[in-house]
Amino acid sequence: MTTQQLYNQIQQKKSFLCIGLDVDLDKIPQHLLQTEDPIFEFNKAIINATHDLCVSYKPNTAFYEAYGLKGWQSLEKTIRYINENYPDIFTIADAKRGDIGNTSSMYAKAFFEDLKFDSVTVAPYMGRDSVEPFLAFENKHTIMLALTSNQGAFDFQTIQANDKPLYQTVLETSKNWKNSKNLMYVVGATKAEYFKEIRSIVPDAFLLVPGVGAQGGNLVDVCKFGMNNKVGLLINSSRGIIYASNGTDFAESARKEALKLQSEMALILEQN
Amino acid sequence: MTTQQLYNQIQQKKSFLCIGLDVDLDKIPQHLLQTEDPIFEFNKAIINATHDLCVSYKPNTAFYEAYGLKGWQSLEKTIRYINENYPDIFTIADAKRGDIGNTSSMYAKAFFEDLKFDSVTVAPYMGRDSVEPFLAFENKHTIMLALTSNQGAFDFQTIQANDKPLYQTVLETSKNWKNSKNLMYVVGATKAEYFKEIRSIVPDAFLLVPGVGAQGGNLVDVCKFGMNNKVGLLINSSRGIIYASNGTDFAESARKEALKLQSEMALILEQN
Repeated sequence: MTTQQLYNQIQQKKSFLCIGLDVDLDKIPQHLLQTEDPIFEFNKAIINATHDLCVSYKPNTAFYEAYGLKGWQSLEKTIRYINENYPDIFTIADAKRGDIGNTSSMYAKAFFEDLKFDSVTVAPYMGRDSVEPFLAFENKHTIMLALTSNQGAFDFQTIQANDKPLYQTVLETSKNWKNSKNLMYVVGATKAEYFKEIRSIVPDAFLLVPGVGAQGGNLVDVCKFGMNNKVGLLINSSRGIIYASNGTDFAESARKEALKLQSEMALILEQN
Repeated sequence: MTTQQLYNQIQQKKSFLCIGLDVDLDKIPQHLLQTEDPIFEFNKAIINATHDLCVSYKPNTAFYEAYGLKGWQSLEKTIRYINENYPDIFTIADAKRGDIGNTSSMYAKAFFEDLKFDSVTVAPYMGRDSVEPFLAFENKHTIMLALTSNQGAFDFQTIQANDKPLYQTVLETSKNWKNSKNLMYVVGATKAEYFKEIRSIVPDAFLLVPGVGAQGGNLVDVCKFGMNNKVGLLINSSRGIIYASNGTDFAESARKEALKLQSEMALILEQN
């Protein structure tokens, strides 16, 4: 998928919502546990109930790996279900991978070719040759961690490195990498004031923004400082949507929560 | 496994060799491709041929994920085979994971509880709360990237951060984390001169050292600066051992290469 196609979808749906499919068997409705593949059944119901309100789904691989082979199978079924039924959706494997060159190539192959995700999240610590193997895939997108939404972000990401916060050095350095046009960045919503600085470094890149809702970020502030002329934002919500109810009405409740966010987004898009 | 048990094994085998099980179907002997699970058959043969010469095996998860469900199954069979047949071996899931707290907990559960690895590699960028969920497991070990052996290490790891190279800040900061006694670190062998500085920061921690051999590091230099009074080093070799031959003699050839390294190690241990 191209970023233009993603932008078209945003305009059409009046939404830049990404829904995180972080499925924990301890949190999903109990009646699903009797099905053969509870994780997939849960995802399918959530997707069917919300696909017109969001532009992206983001399964975090940790939640699937935690269930071993069965979990990996649920992930495969989920991505296939999205690609077959809602091919306009921008899919994100939230995997935060990164390794030496030939090894990163194996990860890129796994997520882009075999699983057919549109994008994958990566960690920057190992530098250029750990990320470029992902960037080599045409019309695939590599979403690199810049400034995350957790408390630990302040341990290293914001310390002064080369006379500026490390996350700014990461952003600037990555712009010089081969095929950097395929880069997007993770920027946590808990720090809306940082978006202004970030936009001065990467004016055109899409930013994947976790931390609206559960982690306390404010949508209006993030948009005020983070939006560019092609929107340039994907706002992620996971638990706030998918665990809105743990009864038999879970999908309907998830839709209601997604609708709230989408309505706010439609209003913001109208005003811009 | 405790670090004391690991040290005992090192003394007994006169080896601190770790063998990386990075299995690429394009590189293994062709006759194995006719078996039902070529990756597992390859690993089993390599393990049977080398287990008395090394103290650790390290499958890199990328090489298994690249083959989807079948790959994940091969990984499960491999770790189970090691644990059942050679329970004294220190096993490392080279996964380089790291995510927000509740998500890192899922990864920790996947690698420590379900797959029963002794250790897993993690990336530091997301800070304390991305690593502490791994550290919470007793007698399990979390091997954090400090200074890697690839060219990209110089993009961020060695830049001045808080008036010292970032990797040193990472080492120092991590010592204050809860259960930091369960930390080990990845330190690439291509920069033997750095080991002296690193040992002044983390004198007691085990260091997992890639980059001897294929990536050009020198074993004697690394030991000179990196060894502590309980050895404190695990030297990894992957391709140099497991792809020593791609004929039917591959396991025997792998043993020969492992024996070369183990003999060098025995000599070094004797002289210290």
